[in-house]
Amino acid sequence: MKLTELSTPCLLLDLDRVERNCATMKGRAQALGVALRPHLKTAKSADVARLATQGGITVSTLAEIDYFGRHGFRDITYAVGITAHKLDTLAELQDKHGLSLSLLADHPATVNEVARRAAQLDRRFALLIEIDCGGGRGGLAPDGAELLALAQLIRSSSHLRLHGVLTHAGQSYATPGRQAITAVAEAERAAAVLAATRLRAAGFEIPVVSVGSTPTAVFAQDLSGVTEMRPGVYTLFDLDQAALGVCKVDDIAASVLASVIGHNPRSRRVLIDAGGLALSKDLSANGLGSGTPDVGYGLVCAAEGGPPLAGLRVAEVHQEHGFIAGSGDTDLLFRQLPIGSRVRILPNHVCMTAAAYDCFEVLRAGSPEVLARWPRAGGWNP
Amino acid sequence: MKLTELSTPCLLLDLDRVERNCATMKGRAQALGVALRPHLKTAKSADVARLATQGGITVSTLAEIDYFGRHGFRDITYAVGITAHKLDTLAELQDKHGLSLSLLADHPATVNEVARRAAQLDRRFALLIEIDCGGGRGGLAPDGAELLALAQLIRSSSHLRLHGVLTHAGQSYATPGRQAITAVAEAERAAAVLAATRLRAAGFEIPVVSVGSTPTAVFAQDLSGVTEMRPGVYTLFDLDQAALGVCKVDDIAASVLASVIGHNPRSRRVLIDAGGLALSKDLSANGLGSGTPDVGYGLVCAAEGGPPLAGLRVAEVHQEHGFIAGSGDTDLLFRQLPIGSRVRILPNHVCMTAAAYDCFEVLRAGSPEVLARWPRAGGWNP
Repeated sequence: MKLTELSTPCLLLDLDRVERNCATMKGRAQALGVALRPHLKTAKSADVARLATQGGITVSTLAEIDYFGRHGFRDITYAVGITAHKLDTLAELQDKHGLSLSLLADHPATVNEVARRAAQLDRRFALLIEIDCGGGRGGLAPDGAELLALAQLIRSSSHLRLHGVLTHAGQSYATPGRQAITAVAEAERAAAVLAATRLRAAGFEIPVVSVGSTPTAVFAQDLSGVTEMRPGVYTLFDLDQAALGVCKVDDIAASVLASVIGHNPRSRRVLIDAGGLALSKDLSANGLGSGTPDVGYGLVCAAEGGPPLAGLRVAEVHQEHGFIAGSGDTDLLFRQLPIGSRVRILPNHVCMTAAAYDCFEVLRAGSPEVLARWPRAGGWNP
Repeated sequence: MKLTELSTPCLLLDLDRVERNCATMKGRAQALGVALRPHLKTAKSADVARLATQGGITVSTLAEIDYFGRHGFRDITYAVGITAHKLDTLAELQDKHGLSLSLLADHPATVNEVARRAAQLDRRFALLIEIDCGGGRGGLAPDGAELLALAQLIRSSSHLRLHGVLTHAGQSYATPGRQAITAVAEAERAAAVLAATRLRAAGFEIPVVSVGSTPTAVFAQDLSGVTEMRPGVYTLFDLDQAALGVCKVDDIAASVLASVIGHNPRSRRVLIDAGGLALSKDLSANGLGSGTPDVGYGLVCAAEGGPPLAGLRVAEVHQEHGFIAGSGDTDLLFRQLPIGSRVRILPNHVCMTAAAYDCFEVLRAGSPEVLARWPRAGGWNP
């Protein structure tokens, strides 16, 4: 199939770029002396996962555990705080795919419920204690008394095994610039290592000290004491990461192919058939830094690829309609994007955008051939 | 299955409310003397569609055409401006399901390309001319020369048939209050009727004069000259419609069931396992009117249903994490929403929220029994 034969909207993957992104991050992990356990919540694709690693992976849903298990990935960290009712499904998936699973907990009530349900299921689950390194999301403070108490509680159940500590510097996504992100990376490392050190001093074995976000993985200077990192969005990259200074726009591997379906001279807008569902309503790249202009819901490229067309952005979205605005003359804009022509939209936040699609259309840069259709995992429940 | 056995996040449907919403809108259409052609882009469900109508429907994707065709809906308006490359698939779907399809156009280039491709396929397609009634989205001005020229162009092809005019007052979603929306409804009606009247005066048959959005359908005083209306979100309703004054919060029929997976005393937030993907990042209900407080990414109800819990909202979302903030004491908030407990989140904009789910879990108000799982259409391409 050719690029020109694809029905719009659909999700394109530039294979050259995803290969390059994966190779670069492998090199980063090697240079930093840590294992790379990529977070597949972004790519949701076994084909991308195989480019990213031959080892363990990170996921965010039961559906992803089932999907990646089915595709031969056995060593999986489920990096959303566990809740006991999910254990029945997890036990089934473990059996079905022969998985080695690590689950996340940060509260005694969670540990008690998980231990109780694990006993009923006659299972033993590996738990990572989540640490809050400053983002205020999940996790315990690395320096509090609750940390040791929780480890003790885990040890007290024969149905649980303390496997390590895990933290995620989510705040890095709101911190533009190399210098600022480098500081966040050090805070992330320091929190995880402090937690591990305190636990070891109290007699606990802590095999895993896990950190990671794409920004901190890209800019970390030193990961002493850390065993693995879990970046995810780097596989595809997006305008948000470009605005943070974490990648170049030329590194963005995923885009949405859309058709021009209208010209509205009254609102001076070009209408495309990719709206809030096809692009997502995420606006996170806007107003982040000095590196990128206002990108709206996405920047506009030629269908064949190449850099963003100067001055154009998706300025407004409704459910199935997107509206491209230009900075110059409207007649020129309409001539530049004639009715029936096609564009690629670079996503603002690719984790949100890509989630709406059940597959990637895979191409090489500059080639009109669609080489493959790579399926993606969707939803939450297997 | 019981409500308590569902894995989270998942999408709940209150059958009493959807039945009531559908009955009320049928009554509105009858009172206004127009046909009701519900827009199923919101519900994406044949089961909901059967509650809404025994007649024609409106959809927004090729995938919905295939899905509803498969479920016996034959008379379908595809209410996103057509682009010629979609005609091959449409022709296949017409044959497969025996469909009577109406397509949308507003530009000579579209009409020329559709006529050319229809000739190659040896088909005749019915076209509605889209009219811009002030929203600045798709459509021609109802009073311009382009309207008559486009109708003439359609008539000049033996592979096309002019079926009528269609408009959508998208601006009603940004216009809170009965009085203001009533004025938008009249502008919507007037634009469609003006276009139809001018075309008829020029000798064109215009069987269909189609208007509609949920706000204008609810508040229109008079639809003289209109043949049908196409509201959609009324089947489920949401906080956005409540903020506009179009429904009560008690009319909202869809919600997301989520589990409490953490308490963060540092950020004073309750963590749930429903984030930006499970709730969407749509914020449209916020800052709209005086009728509702800041709803963030959704209001929080007890898992069993009932009104929103006072002072609580989903204040922040990340991909798979939502953060509930309260207005009062943090200890009280944590006691109110203990770890492992469940909540229902009322969606900000249900079209965006529901799109992430491949089914509804259907319940009666106040009952813990899940009566059925109703599938939903997803994606774009069959």
